[in-house]
Amino acid sequence: MHVPLVLTDFLDRAVHLYGEKAAVIDGDRTYTYAEMQGRVNQLSRGLKALSIEKGDKVAYLAPNSLEMLEGFYGVFQVGGVMTSLNTRLRPEDYLFILNHSESKVLFVDEELYLLIELVRHKLEMVKTIIIHSATRDHDGCLNYEEWLKEFSNAPFDCVELEETDYASLLYTSGTTGDPKGVLLTHRANYLHAMSAMHHLRISDEDKLLHVLPMFHVNGWGSPFYYTANGATQIMLRKVDPAVLLEKVEKYGVSVMHMAPTVLNMVLEEAKRTKITVDHPLRVVIAGSAPPPAFVRKVEEELGWTFIQVYGMTEISPLITISEIRSPLEVQSNSERYRLKAKTGYEMIGSKVRVVDELGEPVSNDGKSIGEIATRSNNVMQGYYKNNEATSAAIRNGWLYTGDMATIDENGYIEIVDRKKDVIISGGENISSIEVESILYEHPGVLEAAVIAVPHEKWGEVPHAVVVVRDGHTLTEEELVTFAQSKLARFKIPKAFTFMDQLPKTASGKIQKVVIRKQFWDESGKMVN
Amino acid sequence: MHVPLVLTDFLDRAVHLYGEKAAVIDGDRTYTYAEMQGRVNQLSRGLKALSIEKGDKVAYLAPNSLEMLEGFYGVFQVGGVMTSLNTRLRPEDYLFILNHSESKVLFVDEELYLLIELVRHKLEMVKTIIIHSATRDHDGCLNYEEWLKEFSNAPFDCVELEETDYASLLYTSGTTGDPKGVLLTHRANYLHAMSAMHHLRISDEDKLLHVLPMFHVNGWGSPFYYTANGATQIMLRKVDPAVLLEKVEKYGVSVMHMAPTVLNMVLEEAKRTKITVDHPLRVVIAGSAPPPAFVRKVEEELGWTFIQVYGMTEISPLITISEIRSPLEVQSNSERYRLKAKTGYEMIGSKVRVVDELGEPVSNDGKSIGEIATRSNNVMQGYYKNNEATSAAIRNGWLYTGDMATIDENGYIEIVDRKKDVIISGGENISSIEVESILYEHPGVLEAAVIAVPHEKWGEVPHAVVVVRDGHTLTEEELVTFAQSKLARFKIPKAFTFMDQLPKTASGKIQKVVIRKQFWDESGKMVN
Ligand SMILES: Nc1ncnc2c1ncn2[C@@H]1O[C@H](COP(=O)(O)OP(=O)(O)OP(=O)(O)O)[C@@H](O)[C@H]1O
Ligand SMILES: Nc1ncnc2c1ncn2[C@@H]1O[C@H](COP(=O)(O)OP(=O)(O)OP(=O)(O)O)[C@@H](O)[C@H]1O
Ligand SMILES: [Mg+2]
Ligand SMILES: [Mg+2]
Repeated sequence: MHVPLVLTDFLDRAVHLYGEKAAVIDGDRTYTYAEMQGRVNQLSRGLKALSIEKGDKVAYLAPNSLEMLEGFYGVFQVGGVMTSLNTRLRPEDYLFILNHSESKVLFVDEELYLLIELVRHKLEMVKTIIIHSATRDHDGCLNYEEWLKEFSNAPFDCVELEETDYASLLYTSGTTGDPKGVLLTHRANYLHAMSAMHHLRISDEDKLLHVLPMFHVNGWGSPFYYTANGATQIMLRKVDPAVLLEKVEKYGVSVMHMAPTVLNMVLEEAKRTKITVDHPLRVVIAGSAPPPAFVRKVEEELGWTFIQVYGMTEISPLITISEIRSPLEVQSNSERYRLKAKTGYEMIGSKVRVVDELGEPVSNDGKSIGEIATRSNNVMQGYYKNNEATSAAIRNGWLYTGDMATIDENGYIEIVDRKKDVIISGGENISSIEVESILYEHPGVLEAAVIAVPHEKWGEVPHAVVVVRDGHTLTEEELVTFAQSKLARFKIPKAFTFMDQLPKTASGKIQKVVIRKQFWDESGKMVN
Repeated sequence: MHVPLVLTDFLDRAVHLYGEKAAVIDGDRTYTYAEMQGRVNQLSRGLKALSIEKGDKVAYLAPNSLEMLEGFYGVFQVGGVMTSLNTRLRPEDYLFILNHSESKVLFVDEELYLLIELVRHKLEMVKTIIIHSATRDHDGCLNYEEWLKEFSNAPFDCVELEETDYASLLYTSGTTGDPKGVLLTHRANYLHAMSAMHHLRISDEDKLLHVLPMFHVNGWGSPFYYTANGATQIMLRKVDPAVLLEKVEKYGVSVMHMAPTVLNMVLEEAKRTKITVDHPLRVVIAGSAPPPAFVRKVEEELGWTFIQVYGMTEISPLITISEIRSPLEVQSNSERYRLKAKTGYEMIGSKVRVVDELGEPVSNDGKSIGEIATRSNNVMQGYYKNNEATSAAIRNGWLYTGDMATIDENGYIEIVDRKKDVIISGGENISSIEVESILYEHPGVLEAAVIAVPHEKWGEVPHAVVVVRDGHTLTEEELVTFAQSKLARFKIPKAFTFMDQLPKTASGKIQKVVIRKQFWDESGKMVN
């Protein structure tokens, strides 16, 4: 029997089995799964009244909130395509994405509306703007709660969907350049969810704190697999480490997803307040490579479980996980942390290989560098309206990720750099991530980014940009001395710049492309 | 990106990540996943040499063994359809199934070959018979190990498969009548595996003892999801409780699947030998309804984890699981065991409902009885060469299971009887399972089956067939007195028959249809 793999089934199951259980906690609002589906049905009826049909794009610009979570299912029920926008872009970026995606309706949280208002007159397809958490009127916009009330919450007759229908259109983080629009089907997100829930050991006992923004690759698919399992989902609207830890305690949070930079802030705060969490807590980390020092802090100092995963918008997004595989015998804790800091190995459902320029697997020696390629149902259909970029990325049934990695004798992949961030100095490849990991071991270093800067003799040389931890002082000499004992000479940054903070994407990644610009602008190019 | 969901991917992953790990332990033979795949490749080459092509049926008649496990993947790699035969049938049944399935090649374990030899001259399609574990020559048959040696174990170029291609043709247990041939696609088995591995919390730490026969619904899919996770699979060729418990200790078995009747034997043996297992062990139970007393014994006396699942050949087979769902608060242990003894609630990926004759859900009152119906990708394409039975079973996108059940206010389904086993006495429905559960509470009862027998006044009345536990004596009067305090009067068996053992299917189910026959034969019909 063929039953299409569609995401609305996940909410239906939660309502069927967990109808009276708390589904969402957002500030002082708590809704059960049954209540949430009532709101979802209202939303679907509202969208239908706005003539949203199968395949139409519906845009969301919102922090993690009840409105955002119910948005997914409300949009899917009418066959719409969830187009969620990064909350940290500039008005002209929104203009571009809203027009490029041909979004017909835009939901926007009041606190972000200003960014839209500035470009509103130039929106080509958006007919209706609906404001979440509105405290006052906005000319020509609808107030979400009032608008919802117009529609019945009775069971809604979902549009008939095929699993190959599109569920989401997501723009990449823009770490390496302009964001690209990624089209993902229901099938991709559904199969991703089945694999992720298994590997992440999701259950109905889980209480997820939505730290990672849901606009970012559907919150790594979390609104799907936590819902399917009937877990409780607690919203964190802004990443404030103190508020985060408060919610962890208050609600007995069992799992959180976040990027290493956010984890770093949490670690700092936990250290400052000497907090201890008495219940089991897993932190699921992806977005960039976490230094082994982070794993140690999480597992040893806090007693939480550290799980690293890896993926990208183009892949729904997760395809690897890094846990200690049976029957690997790990001798010491530091070996254990080292292994968990690696990118990991393929989840069930995805083939993941590290390949050379001919597409052949590099050898399992932990040294040879190749590009990560994957073959998986998780992979996008393509970039929206960009066939060229699509065919550059997907070749012969494999997606080429642009992430450069090694693979060790146990099959653990380790990302050494983005293809675009590798530093090529005198013909030698230097992994910016490796150099950063060493700098992170220094107690005075809060954040570090290593980039290539132009050099007459070597072409490129490594340059470090460092944020000093509060209460510490640091000099270039100290850091050079520190690095000397741990790094080959040519890998030691030739110079250091100290900054108050590093530019980051909304998902919390350090934007080396922005830092790099300052050093390369004069030369008029970005690579030597 | 569309990547077909095919079962060979599971072995490929195991080899890629767990190549050097013990995959199979069968007696004194241990093979790693890499070695096993080598043998699988030899087998696939052998099958190709025998002209097996996509869609061809390949039959297996074997106990749980290395040869059986590798058979699945060897057959799939050439696009063949695994047709595994129940080891407890009669020669004429094999003749029927082998001809009906049009199997071209038959693999048979030497200890079962005699059953085939008797009908061999009447086999219409089987061209080649290959003997597992052969100790001597059999006229016109090939010796498996010698035959394998002729072929290379080098990587094999798998036939290109679509997920809608057939993977297995399985005949039902024959509990209620003649076995029917069930056709399952790769997609059905694959999606079943994704859901089952999640709910059963399978991981690479698992050591599965293959107790449940693999011929029986692909061992509930265990060769697929344990392989995908890189678990170690230990073979139990015959269900001998002493040998079983010995292997549990010797290999540190973490999980076993079996029917309640087999569990009962294990419980008896464990009690007799006062065994204690020091490591965590899950027993996954299905096939018929386990009495709550079994749950108590497993969890309280042995300290193992009891997990009940439910399914049928037609559904790959599992669609429900019975665990204590969050946030249900269970007050007492007995309430807990009572809940775990229920059939459970839908796994992710399957919709499961209890419906009345009009197809409408019965009320969630734990009393109203309806038929279990399911809508799921796990469901078969249909019965092989039996459209009539197919359209009787699959109607409007739902499979009707023939299992009658109630559903309680928490959504727990509980099978009260097979449609064909319900006793209708004076217009009242009596669940044979309910009456049996009460009898099982009596310390002197080892096994019990309750069936309907014809009665002039009431149409049908309940009749109990009981096997007395060693060292006990029991009379009809004692059992009636015992039942009187626990059952409504009309449910108490009107008579008792004591037997040395009950007829069972190979999967360990009590064949009420066989027992019933003795009581109904005179009347010339089977229902009043
Ligand atoms: N565990 C991880 N370790 C190292 N890098 C990671 C990990 N997880 C994700 N990444 C990085 O994040 C990338 C995916 O991020 P995302 O899809 O959000 O957009 P982006 O690649 O940062 O932005 P853009 O493609 O627009 O430059 C991966 O390609 C990889 O470089
Ligand atoms: N957990 C369970 N509780 C009660 N009954 C179960 C459970 N699991 C399986 N069953 C019974 O087993 C049946 C499926 O068994 P299977 O497919 O092996 O063949 P069968 O139904 O016994 O044989 P046949 O269909 O040939 O009569 C279900 O329909 C149900 O009656
Ligand atoms: Mg990218
Ligand atoms: Mg049946």
